[in-house]
Amino acid sequence: MEMGSGGDERSGLLARGWLLLKALPEKFKAKMVNFVVVTKKLGQDDPRRVIHSLKVGLALSLVSLFYYFETLFNSFGVHAMWAIMTVVVVFEFSVGATLGKGLNRAMATLVAGALGVGAHYMASISGNVGEPIILGIFVFFQAAVSTFIRFFPKIKARYDYGLLIFILTFALVSISGFREDEILEFAQKRLATVVIGACACVIVSIFVCPVWAGQDLHNLISLNMEKLGTFLEGFGNRYFGSTEDEEFKDNESFVHGYKSVLNSKTIEETLANFARWEPGHGRFMYRHPWKQYLKVGTLTRQCAYRIEALNGFLSSDIQVQPEFARKIQDTCTKMSLDSGKALKELALAVKTMTRPSSADSHVANLKTSTKNLRCLLKCGLGNDTDLLKVIPVTTVASLLIDVAMSVEEITASVNELASLAHFKQKAKDTNLTLEKRHGVLKSLSKQGQCSRCCYNS
Amino acid sequence: MEMGSGGDERSGLLARGWLLLKALPEKFKAKMVNFVVVTKKLGQDDPRRVIHSLKVGLALSLVSLFYYFETLFNSFGVHAMWAIMTVVVVFEFSVGATLGKGLNRAMATLVAGALGVGAHYMASISGNVGEPIILGIFVFFQAAVSTFIRFFPKIKARYDYGLLIFILTFALVSISGFREDEILEFAQKRLATVVIGACACVIVSIFVCPVWAGQDLHNLISLNMEKLGTFLEGFGNRYFGSTEDEEFKDNESFVHGYKSVLNSKTIEETLANFARWEPGHGRFMYRHPWKQYLKVGTLTRQCAYRIEALNGFLSSDIQVQPEFARKIQDTCTKMSLDSGKALKELALAVKTMTRPSSADSHVANLKTSTKNLRCLLKCGLGNDTDLLKVIPVTTVASLLIDVAMSVEEITASVNELASLAHFKQKAKDTNLTLEKRHGVLKSLSKQGQCSRCCYNS
Repeated sequence: MEMGSGGDERSGLLARGWLLLKALPEKFKAKMVNFVVVTKKLGQDDPRRVIHSLKVGLALSLVSLFYYFETLFNSFGVHAMWAIMTVVVVFEFSVGATLGKGLNRAMATLVAGALGVGAHYMASISGNVGEPIILGIFVFFQAAVSTFIRFFPKIKARYDYGLLIFILTFALVSISGFREDEILEFAQKRLATVVIGACACVIVSIFVCPVWAGQDLHNLISLNMEKLGTFLEGFGNRYFGSTEDEEFKDNESFVHGYKSVLNSKTIEETLANFARWEPGHGRFMYRHPWKQYLKVGTLTRQCAYRIEALNGFLSSDIQVQPEFARKIQDTCTKMSLDSGKALKELALAVKTMTRPSSADSHVANLKTSTKNLRCLLKCGLGNDTDLLKVIPVTTVASLLIDVAMSVEEITASVNELASLAHFKQKAKDTNLTLEKRHGVLKSLSKQGQCSRCCYNS
Repeated sequence: MEMGSGGDERSGLLARGWLLLKALPEKFKAKMVNFVVVTKKLGQDDPRRVIHSLKVGLALSLVSLFYYFETLFNSFGVHAMWAIMTVVVVFEFSVGATLGKGLNRAMATLVAGALGVGAHYMASISGNVGEPIILGIFVFFQAAVSTFIRFFPKIKARYDYGLLIFILTFALVSISGFREDEILEFAQKRLATVVIGACACVIVSIFVCPVWAGQDLHNLISLNMEKLGTFLEGFGNRYFGSTEDEEFKDNESFVHGYKSVLNSKTIEETLANFARWEPGHGRFMYRHPWKQYLKVGTLTRQCAYRIEALNGFLSSDIQVQPEFARKIQDTCTKMSLDSGKALKELALAVKTMTRPSSADSHVANLKTSTKNLRCLLKCGLGNDTDLLKVIPVTTVASLLIDVAMSVEEITASVNELASLAHFKQKAKDTNLTLEKRHGVLKSLSKQGQCSRCCYNS
């Protein structure tokens, strides 16, 4: 083509252009199909997303009624737009986040409005020349100081948004007062419309299919333990190669679910911060011990780090001395299984808010197994051992002992949670059947997945 | 006291009240002192926080000039407040975040304003009764659809704020148009003031002591490798007990610095998102390979998980067979030291943007050591070995081998980064002296600490 005449080149370009053009609708179609698939998956993974979107529309429609009805509009004038703005900005996925933002916004508007009016009066008594200078100094300093205060970690966690609105309202009220004489009216109407907008958000958020951050944190903590449990239940059989277990192979992706636990710190802390704003709901009282959930979460993550180390041995292809492996295989498999069962039991106990009944017995089993394993290791080596082929197995054994200790700590921590949050004693006859447990945990796993994505910011 | 008469009780209460009252000023004083200490520490840890606060004040003062000058005010009227609002909401700690938010806000205002005007015209041709209904439907659906789109992970990462402003502007323009006839003017002025506010933010953010998210990400990645390096350099000597090294003991808190690496995923991703908005600056071009930084970060975190497992053995009090430990002690210590040195070398290379020169030789050393260690383990066990006392040491050895592999991966990844980002070849005579290296890394460590807190949200 390069060697061809100008005409050839042009027709070549045209042909290529034509091909591209012809491919365009197909590319567009492929993109659209992909878009539809992703959209459908987002909605199916967590239907609460669809409901949340409709709720935002509903709240916005509610406050836009201000504009439609003459009488309401006449009393608020253009200030009605603050209500709309409040709804758009304050409405969040969970009740806790919405409530926190709404309260922050309303309180900050109140305080900053009052201070702004004060600043305006102080400036106005200092004459025509002094007024803008004094106002400028006020605005500059309050913005600088408030911005700095936002860096305090504790304040950032709970009142960040309030400080932002404080800066905004103070500046608007004090400066706009420079123009309008009805500064008090301005501040009042801004407060009233903000409160109305915030109330609309909170009411819709609480009374239309509420999403509780506390409930999500509760589910997430339980789900994380469940994920580690699933891994551990399968690990023993898998590592010692005694399994070509079909069920286990199918669950490949589920087994690797524990990886998400490694990075769950941020989302747990965010949810706990939101949950503290929430009123009592369902089985959760106001002042539910959310901090204890974070402790359980931290210990679970600690356990996940150890499992991450264990997981490395599943894929390693270092040869293992079979005689030695066989010696400790049973004990290791039992330990791994017991750890997994204990974690699943704890997950279920948290989920159903009953006291963990059999976790303690699993932990007792673990202690016995640890002793046995230590004993086996102490006396189990023949003279002709190739240490290099023994090391992977001993490392796995040693990591399993660490995991067992971790599980013990988690059990203690969940027990503490159970007494702090007054979990019910499980009646013997209400013991869940295996199928029911499976059902509960399955639905739990679905919810947990979703909340993770909805809060990721 | 309980047995006493009414008079006794009352005087007792009074006395207690008096004590409480007397303690009040002291408590208040203590709280104030604490507040001052925390404030001072926040400012000293990262002076950029103080500068940022002043910058916000400056930008706000700049746009509030609108209100002070008659001519400007007359042309924009009350719309000038959008400029103030934009500054307060858009101004963020780093240039990238500010630029991203500003562009999002301006673009969303433009598009939503145009669509809002269109929706208003469509509604206005449908008569007095139909108008509010059609507008209501429009507002409801665009709010619901836009809110749902905010759940798409890729869109959430970059355009979340834009969609929020889209919902807001569309609602304000289309509904307020229902009242005012000058809807086009409303949309235009809103756009103009928003653009002015956003420009004020971006200009102040870039030209007054700019904070680049890209630079912070760069420092953080380097610092994280440095932290792991510090731990590893000290680990060998410490574990095998050959050290009562004073320097090492003093650095206790520094040694445990690696813990923060475990949870650095969120902050790294946030910084990378911001960095993509930033124009070329300093040694970073536009389209600097920020994604590769995330890859290096992920591998570093992987290495940190292994170090977390290693760290468990530092505090464990299981007895170790000394003869066996002595046998592999030298090789293990050397491996740990080499891993540490390699990581520190990589950290320095990233920091100074030069190609890592000696990291490869450290990795070669590591490979030899790994072979040696394997050999020692293979043939190094006597007949009378108590395996239980050998296990901790072998586990440490095996973990060190894993760490060495991790370091190899990190080295490859940093080399890739070096070629993607065109790091300079280090001239031989410009080799930094040891003191200079120490200085560079010290300042780096300080910066990294700070950026972590400033972005934590």
